[in-house]
Amino acid sequence: MEMESCVPPGFRFHPTEEELVGYYLKRKINSLQIDLDVIVDIDLYKIEPWDIQARCKLGYSEKNEWYFFSHKDKKYPTGTRTNRATAAGFWKATGRDKAVLSKNNIIGMRKTLVFYKGRAPNGNKTDWIMHEYRLQTSEHAPPQASSSISSID
Amino acid sequence: MEMESCVPPGFRFHPTEEELVGYYLKRKINSLQIDLDVIVDIDLYKIEPWDIQARCKLGYSEKNEWYFFSHKDKKYPTGTRTNRATAAGFWKATGRDKAVLSKNNIIGMRKTLVFYKGRAPNGNKTDWIMHEYRLQTSEHAPPQASSSISSID
Repeated sequence: MEMESCVPPGFRFHPTEEELVGYYLKRKINSLQIDLDVIVDIDLYKIEPWDIQARCKLGYSEKNEWYFFSHKDKKYPTGTRTNRATAAGFWKATGRDKAVLSKNNIIGMRKTLVFYKGRAPNGNKTDWIMHEYRLQTSEHAPPQASSSISSID
Repeated sequence: MEMESCVPPGFRFHPTEEELVGYYLKRKINSLQIDLDVIVDIDLYKIEPWDIQARCKLGYSEKNEWYFFSHKDKKYPTGTRTNRATAAGFWKATGRDKAVLSKNNIIGMRKTLVFYKGRAPNGNKTDWIMHEYRLQTSEHAPPQASSSISSID
C-alpha cells in the first residue's frame, strides 16, 4: 500500500523471474538496499497460505499473487532437508525445478510447491501454489529464498 | 526506456482507465506536472499506427499497447467534427462510447476506433485498435486527448 505511493500512478509490480532472482533475491541475500520495500519478510512456516495476503498488501484489488522473502527452515538441525509444514498443512514440491535465465546464464532455480491441508504423507491438495526461487549459488549462501505465492481458482 | 530507470525493477506501466483519465489526462489538460514522462506527445494524424511504437518506447518486449497524448484536429476550422485521417488511412469510430468511472462518478469517456487503410468511405479495415479518452468536461476544455493504441493479432 504505502510503497505504491512512491511509484507513479499506473505502475504495477509484475516482475519477471529474472528480476525477482537477479535483483530482489540477490540483493536480499547480499544485504544490499532494495529500492522499494515491495517484498516483505514472512516466516512461511508460521503462516497459512490464506493469511499471507494480509501480510503482503500491495494494494491491487485484482491481485491474486503475492511476493515475500522467507528463510528456509531445516527439518533437522544437522540435515539439509527443508521443513515446509505449517500448523494446518504442508507445502509439497511438484514437477521439476526450472532454471531462471539471464542472458542465457542460469542465475537461479524455481521450485513449484502445492499446499496440502493435513499431515504428510496424507493431506488434501488445495489450489494454493507457491514458486520458490533460489540463487544458483544458494547452496553456499545463507538459507534465504524469495518466493511468490499465488491462489489459483 | 529512460523512464523505466526511475521505477524499481519489476514495475510495469499497466494503468487502469481511471488512472489514465483521472491522473494522466486531467493533469495534462491542466498543464500540471506528471511524475514520470511515461506518456509521450504525438501528432496522431501525421503518424501511421505502425510507426507509433517507435515513438512510445517503454521498453517492454512483450508489450503490444502504447500510450500517447494527441491534440484533436478539427476537420474544418469552424466545425466540431474531428479529422482522424493520416497519409495512409483513417481512424473510424466503432461501437458506443463507454464511461470511465471513479468512485461511481463519470470522469471521462472512451471512444474505440479502428484503423482503415485507404480513403473514406472506402478503405480496408486493419487490426489496429485505438482507445481515445476524453475528460467528461472536455467539451469546454482545450482539445487534448489521451489515447491508448494497441495492435491486435
